[in-house]
Amino acid sequence: MNVHAPSPGADAVRTLVIGGGIVGLSIAWELGRRGHPVTLVDPDPAGGATFAAAGMLAPVSEFHYQEQELLGLTFASAAAYPAFARDLAEASGTDPGYRTRPTLVVGLDSADRTALADLAAAQRAHGLEVEDLGTREARRREPLLSPAVSSAQAAPGDHQVDPRAMAASLQAALAALPQARTVAATAVALLHDDPADPEGVTGAALDTGQRLEAQETVLACGLGAAAVEGLPTGLELRLRPVHGDILRLRAPERLRPLVQHTVRGLVHGRPVYLVPREDGTVVLGATQRENSEPGPQAGGVYELLRDAQAIVPAVAELELLEVTSRARPGTPDNAPLLGRCRGADGVDVPGLVIATGFFRHGVLLSPAAAHVCADLIGGGRVDLTPFRPDRFSRPATPPARLTPARSTP
Amino acid sequence: MNVHAPSPGADAVRTLVIGGGIVGLSIAWELGRRGHPVTLVDPDPAGGATFAAAGMLAPVSEFHYQEQELLGLTFASAAAYPAFARDLAEASGTDPGYRTRPTLVVGLDSADRTALADLAAAQRAHGLEVEDLGTREARRREPLLSPAVSSAQAAPGDHQVDPRAMAASLQAALAALPQARTVAATAVALLHDDPADPEGVTGAALDTGQRLEAQETVLACGLGAAAVEGLPTGLELRLRPVHGDILRLRAPERLRPLVQHTVRGLVHGRPVYLVPREDGTVVLGATQRENSEPGPQAGGVYELLRDAQAIVPAVAELELLEVTSRARPGTPDNAPLLGRCRGADGVDVPGLVIATGFFRHGVLLSPAAAHVCADLIGGGRVDLTPFRPDRFSRPATPPARLTPARSTP
Repeated sequence: MNVHAPSPGADAVRTLVIGGGIVGLSIAWELGRRGHPVTLVDPDPAGGATFAAAGMLAPVSEFHYQEQELLGLTFASAAAYPAFARDLAEASGTDPGYRTRPTLVVGLDSADRTALADLAAAQRAHGLEVEDLGTREARRREPLLSPAVSSAQAAPGDHQVDPRAMAASLQAALAALPQARTVAATAVALLHDDPADPEGVTGAALDTGQRLEAQETVLACGLGAAAVEGLPTGLELRLRPVHGDILRLRAPERLRPLVQHTVRGLVHGRPVYLVPREDGTVVLGATQRENSEPGPQAGGVYELLRDAQAIVPAVAELELLEVTSRARPGTPDNAPLLGRCRGADGVDVPGLVIATGFFRHGVLLSPAAAHVCADLIGGGRVDLTPFRPDRFSRPATPPARLTPARSTP
Repeated sequence: MNVHAPSPGADAVRTLVIGGGIVGLSIAWELGRRGHPVTLVDPDPAGGATFAAAGMLAPVSEFHYQEQELLGLTFASAAAYPAFARDLAEASGTDPGYRTRPTLVVGLDSADRTALADLAAAQRAHGLEVEDLGTREARRREPLLSPAVSSAQAAPGDHQVDPRAMAASLQAALAALPQARTVAATAVALLHDDPADPEGVTGAALDTGQRLEAQETVLACGLGAAAVEGLPTGLELRLRPVHGDILRLRAPERLRPLVQHTVRGLVHGRPVYLVPREDGTVVLGATQRENSEPGPQAGGVYELLRDAQAIVPAVAELELLEVTSRARPGTPDNAPLLGRCRGADGVDVPGLVIATGFFRHGVLLSPAAAHVCADLIGGGRVDLTPFRPDRFSRPATPPARLTPARSTP
């Protein structure tokens, strides 16, 4: 990735952002604060995966073998978070809940210990900072850890944000911009109203019948993106729902703080995490299901509670406040679909930027998504080759010519 | 217990029922259909323990050693259910969800098997019908029972009702009575406005400032009863909250019906039950906690899910719809506080009937409570000695004279 600062003198572009999850909100706010008139369209902003998300900002402990293209983007976004959160707090007058305490990673049995040690070696080989703690030091930092925990590491670069708080901050910041507005509706189709360029996107039609015209449209509505009509010919958005069940609990006063750090555990091979908030609540997650059941599943909730108690037994004494289930937009390579895409003529479709498929990384990647989308729209040069939204598409008819991408309007 | 039919020529009595849980609603409807003008007072009818209750009508499997006084009342109420439910369905035009399929009782390990066999022997010694099934027959009836289930019985006399449906039916039936009304408020004090008898109760004052006069007041607001001011001198309502966590789940189509009978299990000594509804949902309960945490506790929810899966593994695949926690009003001997109580002069306080402390048995005992309260108020003779609300009270000052109870007005 190669992000250039926007040129201050760039002309304002009339923009439309479809989707008000944390990604769409971040993009819209970034566009708005760079001076572009922006309209955000969502029937229920921050009500989807954002509502469920725990908000771990964990490029280190979320590092997975074979997802190395993603690593650069997650690190760039993690690096962008402090300034993004600070500017957002200032613009909104609210606290987006960004906290930089390190994450603890603990393993239960000897196989978990080995797996975490192997992963730490791979993480270090990629230059990531992982500190071996020893269980005594881990218990000094988190006295309520189970005596059965057999290994512990710290990831100083892995932090957290409160996605509901951040989404509220983004909405407040957006509302404070005179050139921004939000429309509570669902975009059902992209418009192609330029007779000179029938592939070009000129805005979107809403389920209310309204038509919103825009010079640039950002498609950031998660799983819903694939259902929007009028996508570029041949473009296949290979999104699949990966459901997650996640719990919110509240520690009684006598047990506060239950933990002070985000604690990620590996429990007999199964991942589980506890993310503490300052109000005494704890987010416990998360399952990954690819079945078609939309609601939280009893078996998944059971396993989360079981595994969380294995690393922090006092979880048993917490009040269960909320059980939430949401679908995250998964992609074949677990990386987002981000940037412009080629049309039938093999060149990038004007007027359209895609930003979806963020899977487990939507909250972490929001500042990066905001920056690259705003850079693209502002005419900056951004190399997003590994994340091209058309990388899983069959060649359009006629086959795509291998010409350089047309420069953005 | 000795219930007499109300005398048809009895004069109508102006009555007030404080508390709109299933007990208060049943009493109010019974009073109303016997021709008494009745006012029900509750800020949120059916929103307390009734909202949580599973609705097992299980005098046999709820039989506990040393609760033999209660047995007569539970059996009388179970025997009254068919007619009560039929009349209620007719009066309300709705289905209160009364179903008479037998209950299955299953044990997991050999200790559970022995405990259930011992309990069955005690139940039979009290004339209760318990059928030994054998696990093969149990699995024929319930194919999704775990292979680990090692013993099974049927209790043909244990049935179920849907408490939310029944409460809705009672509210509809009450609304259909011209001489009944419901006031959405909280009663804060009993009135004593008869100068000739300062102990007598003449109605109640509400938190709205309103004063409702009545010839007879029934105090049926569960745990709230002890907080009402103006209780008879020396009366101690020894109520304590026993919290219960209870889950509602939904079986996916492919797993319906998950079970066809109410299944009660003993799992390594811990009780758990599954109550199926015809809409594909299943009620899974219930914990008993006497700590002060009002919300559902993670540890309790975890144990319910674990133990339910031990007897019906497919519970793991159900959607978790709802986690509810409510407090039931417990008493020192687990029997209700039901009937009239003595005042400072040692005779029954006129104008007051108490009906609380139903603990785990509120839904089962509602028809009996309705009948005995209406009988008392209608001037019938009812022997409720074992359930006297003043049985745990210290003698009032001056000490209660041991005179026969004054006849009801």
